[in-house]
Amino acid sequence: MKTLLDIVNEIDSFPYHGSTDYDQYTNGLWRFYLPDDLRPHGYISNFVAETMPWTSDFHLDARSVPKRIQLLADSPATANKAIATLLQTTRDRNIFPCLTGWRNEEFRVLGARSDIRIERAGAHLLGITTTGVHMTVFTRSRDGSELLIWVPKRSSSLKVAPGKLDNSIAGGVPAGMQPFACLLKEAAEEASLPEELMRRCAKAVGCVTEFSAKDGGKGVLAPSLKYVYDMEVGGEVELRPADDEVEEFRLMTAVEVKRSIVEGEFKPMCVMVLIDFLVRHGVLTCEDERDYAELVARTHRYLPFPTS
Amino acid sequence: MKTLLDIVNEIDSFPYHGSTDYDQYTNGLWRFYLPDDLRPHGYISNFVAETMPWTSDFHLDARSVPKRIQLLADSPATANKAIATLLQTTRDRNIFPCLTGWRNEEFRVLGARSDIRIERAGAHLLGITTTGVHMTVFTRSRDGSELLIWVPKRSSSLKVAPGKLDNSIAGGVPAGMQPFACLLKEAAEEASLPEELMRRCAKAVGCVTEFSAKDGGKGVLAPSLKYVYDMEVGGEVELRPADDEVEEFRLMTAVEVKRSIVEGEFKPMCVMVLIDFLVRHGVLTCEDERDYAELVARTHRYLPFPTS
Repeated sequence: MKTLLDIVNEIDSFPYHGSTDYDQYTNGLWRFYLPDDLRPHGYISNFVAETMPWTSDFHLDARSVPKRIQLLADSPATANKAIATLLQTTRDRNIFPCLTGWRNEEFRVLGARSDIRIERAGAHLLGITTTGVHMTVFTRSRDGSELLIWVPKRSSSLKVAPGKLDNSIAGGVPAGMQPFACLLKEAAEEASLPEELMRRCAKAVGCVTEFSAKDGGKGVLAPSLKYVYDMEVGGEVELRPADDEVEEFRLMTAVEVKRSIVEGEFKPMCVMVLIDFLVRHGVLTCEDERDYAELVARTHRYLPFPTS
Repeated sequence: MKTLLDIVNEIDSFPYHGSTDYDQYTNGLWRFYLPDDLRPHGYISNFVAETMPWTSDFHLDARSVPKRIQLLADSPATANKAIATLLQTTRDRNIFPCLTGWRNEEFRVLGARSDIRIERAGAHLLGITTTGVHMTVFTRSRDGSELLIWVPKRSSSLKVAPGKLDNSIAGGVPAGMQPFACLLKEAAEEASLPEELMRRCAKAVGCVTEFSAKDGGKGVLAPSLKYVYDMEVGGEVELRPADDEVEEFRLMTAVEVKRSIVEGEFKPMCVMVLIDFLVRHGVLTCEDERDYAELVARTHRYLPFPTS
């Protein structure tokens, strides 16, 4: 049986400074820089750096240590145009499978000093931190002793994580939208939750982070920040699928949720949110969970990119 | 007016990997190793390494990169004796002011593979992570709209942080005691809270971490892990001083607490716990607090030492 920390290691797979493979791994990566900003906004793998059809808007410096890719632009508008052109060209040439999931929806680059945007499907290629809103909707058993969590099962016809369990509500935050406004939209679309209930009962409770390095040096680097919300509801509130992405909602005890995490039944993108929930609600404690302190730190990883 | 992040920067002052001063700062430090354990358990400053009256139980290797101090011992008992002898000798010679606060109470070295202990007053000298329990006791205003936090004012006659505001309940976790058992003891001693109420209402909600580098390279390095608890009580529960360390308890609104943090009225050791509380209870939100994501990551710093 895997532990929660085993699952976290699979998800938050980008090595930590001080680990044996950190230097070798990170020295091979490229840093992505926006105009007039000394802070890197993403890491790019060698495979991506060598394969992307870079335009003259991007200056690649393979001799600097670490290697740099600098976006050259004299305004936010030209920066946005350069990124859009690069990704559209890359998509047209069918170079990276991830761009087949083109969304026509953009992320705002987190922590950028101006409104720089990137097509959602392309964020991982430039190593840009993605932002999402995730909410756990829960109720209590009649005697109050147990937490019951509303868990959707994803449709088996979805391309991403078909048939997996998911957070009660989850979605990416599109550019130009505030996180809580985005949550309202997702809650209505995914679970038929009315705005009035949401405004009264949904509570901001923090954020979780992870940094996933998929497929080693060849693949994509995916730092992620998720704004986290809780909503406690009474037994009279029922979550119902409102689109065809969710097959059904079920109520699971916190203990069942924990077991389903280690059995790999949840979509990986949900796991940090659920572990944070189980910690904040005292289901996991330092007396019972050997890796308690490490799980708390790992679910709130300090990303090497600006977030504010 | 300072921001919350300014205050966090003062407390969590050990540089982060990737910051401009990180390499220069950390290359000068010594790593402290326990027997049969390849993971460092603390960083030691040059000043401390050069000034401590090391016995032959400690092997100093100034040529390795980074520099190493290895405790040599063939059993936990001899390891504990070596640490105790070193600190007692250091205390007798009056070398470091921190040892004037000798407690005759030990911390267990967090994450050590056996029961290795260190006098509380000496933990910072070897850079060992200290462990504490901190609880926020709160209630709600009559109309339910405001959180009210029970805040003790420390006695003006205390040596440490006289007259400062503090967490509702706080204390170090002594070796041989579980965190929740320690919390029960502190809650009775510091605030006259009965065990029955504590067992019914106190909730484990996570932990916070910080890494303080006091007085630069000359001083002590203080990584810290605090197990965090919340307790919501009704208006009928009143916290009363039970020892002479607390002058009085007062109820403060969450907004007053936030203001008092940035005005430096709280003991620094409390601040991470309170920021985490304000985040988890939705007083701080990503819409209103520019540094939200950074504050969340900083209050849960991944320490470079084992925690489990």
